[in-house]
Amino acid sequence: MLQDRVEDVLRARVEDATRDAPEPLAAAMRHAVLEGGSRLRPRVCVAVALALGDPSPWLTDAAACSLELIHAASLAHDDLPCFDDADLRRGRPSLHRSFGVPVALLAGDALIVMAFEVLARETPRAPRQVGALVSNLARGSGVPHGIAAGQAAELSSNDPCLRMRKTSALFECAAAAGAIAAGTDPAPWTAMGRLFGEAFQVADDVHDVRGGLDLGKPSGRDSALGRPNVAISLGLDRAQAQVKVLHRAAMEAIPPGARRDRLAEILDACVESS
Amino acid sequence: MLQDRVEDVLRARVEDATRDAPEPLAAAMRHAVLEGGSRLRPRVCVAVALALGDPSPWLTDAAACSLELIHAASLAHDDLPCFDDADLRRGRPSLHRSFGVPVALLAGDALIVMAFEVLARETPRAPRQVGALVSNLARGSGVPHGIAAGQAAELSSNDPCLRMRKTSALFECAAAAGAIAAGTDPAPWTAMGRLFGEAFQVADDVHDVRGGLDLGKPSGRDSALGRPNVAISLGLDRAQAQVKVLHRAAMEAIPPGARRDRLAEILDACVESS
Repeated sequence: MLQDRVEDVLRARVEDATRDAPEPLAAAMRHAVLEGGSRLRPRVCVAVALALGDPSPWLTDAAACSLELIHAASLAHDDLPCFDDADLRRGRPSLHRSFGVPVALLAGDALIVMAFEVLARETPRAPRQVGALVSNLARGSGVPHGIAAGQAAELSSNDPCLRMRKTSALFECAAAAGAIAAGTDPAPWTAMGRLFGEAFQVADDVHDVRGGLDLGKPSGRDSALGRPNVAISLGLDRAQAQVKVLHRAAMEAIPPGARRDRLAEILDACVESS
Repeated sequence: MLQDRVEDVLRARVEDATRDAPEPLAAAMRHAVLEGGSRLRPRVCVAVALALGDPSPWLTDAAACSLELIHAASLAHDDLPCFDDADLRRGRPSLHRSFGVPVALLAGDALIVMAFEVLARETPRAPRQVGALVSNLARGSGVPHGIAAGQAAELSSNDPCLRMRKTSALFECAAAAGAIAAGTDPAPWTAMGRLFGEAFQVADDVHDVRGGLDLGKPSGRDSALGRPNVAISLGLDRAQAQVKVLHRAAMEAIPPGARRDRLAEILDACVESS
């Protein structure tokens, strides 16, 4: 149900934004966002807002959408030949394999821009919250500590912690966005968001080594590309134990008084691949 | 003096934003923004705000900065091998020639994000204007009619009007940003902004064909790359006449009552290469 809510808002916003855009850019943007995905980041955002009563669901929806747009943009750019050179994403040809490198690059750019536009559209009803959400999203996406910075740091280091930090930056941002959209201080939620992200990344590393689940991308890819992977550096057993430790720590980091059921459900989804 | 104001704010914001960012990404971002440039878009923004009394110079500065960051990001991405494959920019090696394709791509992404962050920082003092500026910047940068859309449209068409539209999108956005930062309705300023952009693009096309001025990029490039150029399709004389027509139309489009001196100066700078 929570995933349906996220899917509905993503579809509505992306179809609206791309209706008058030139092809094939419009099709590439739709492909990048609407062809599946776990929607973990927007689900974390909505789950935090729900844990706080979700008083402005329209703002929560905008915040959730903005997170997935940034995530989709980062995947579009990460898959390009100059980074991962990935042929597949979610079991289908990656964006540049379907539309060519120039269109895939522009689709990523346009999705980053759209993420901020989706937030700004809510200015008339909630100007101060929109400003806080824009700042928060920029912090999770740019420099010095967002995913662009994390991706750059990975280019020159093989430390698996860098990858974990890159992933957790947008999860932390997602948790904070849910709190801001609910009209509350995001500070108590950032530790939980970061731990969610770390749990997910270690689980994803375990999956890459272990394979077995059909997540639409080939397993063993980190090893083939020489990329940092916690399950390679720690070993599979210790990495799986680490997932459990992070799962427990994330649940314990939920601020007292907040409803926990949805958050537990999303956290289970974050680590289910391990 | 107006250019000094723009340079000062750009330097301060970019140095602040990149201080804790990983190298070489931080150096690439500084290189992309701080190594020269005509600053026409931020100067149009500041000139419009000044024509309206510039009541909130700190907000005008943020708006001006955001425009140049988007412009620098678009140059970083346009120069990449999958588009123009340009070796030079402003007489120096282009960003990917200096830092490699992955870092140049990420620098562009991070600059797009930073453009919105710079605006959002002014939320406490002017939340509604910040929301309007974020929407306006997104309109000039993304889909359906911003520079990313324009760049995509150019991939599949040789119509020189598309290029003019892409350039004028960000000039229109710059004029509107100046009006919003001055606390006024941007609508009366968009025609002038668009005509400024068109005058600049035709003048730039003339320069590309005629050469002669040392703008730090090789002339004859459009012809070599088979790219649309008004001075090639119309001929040099008719294109130069067109610059004059657009210059006059832009001056006539300045809303009545606004101070015109700064705007005349910037418009002259826009077309001085022709």
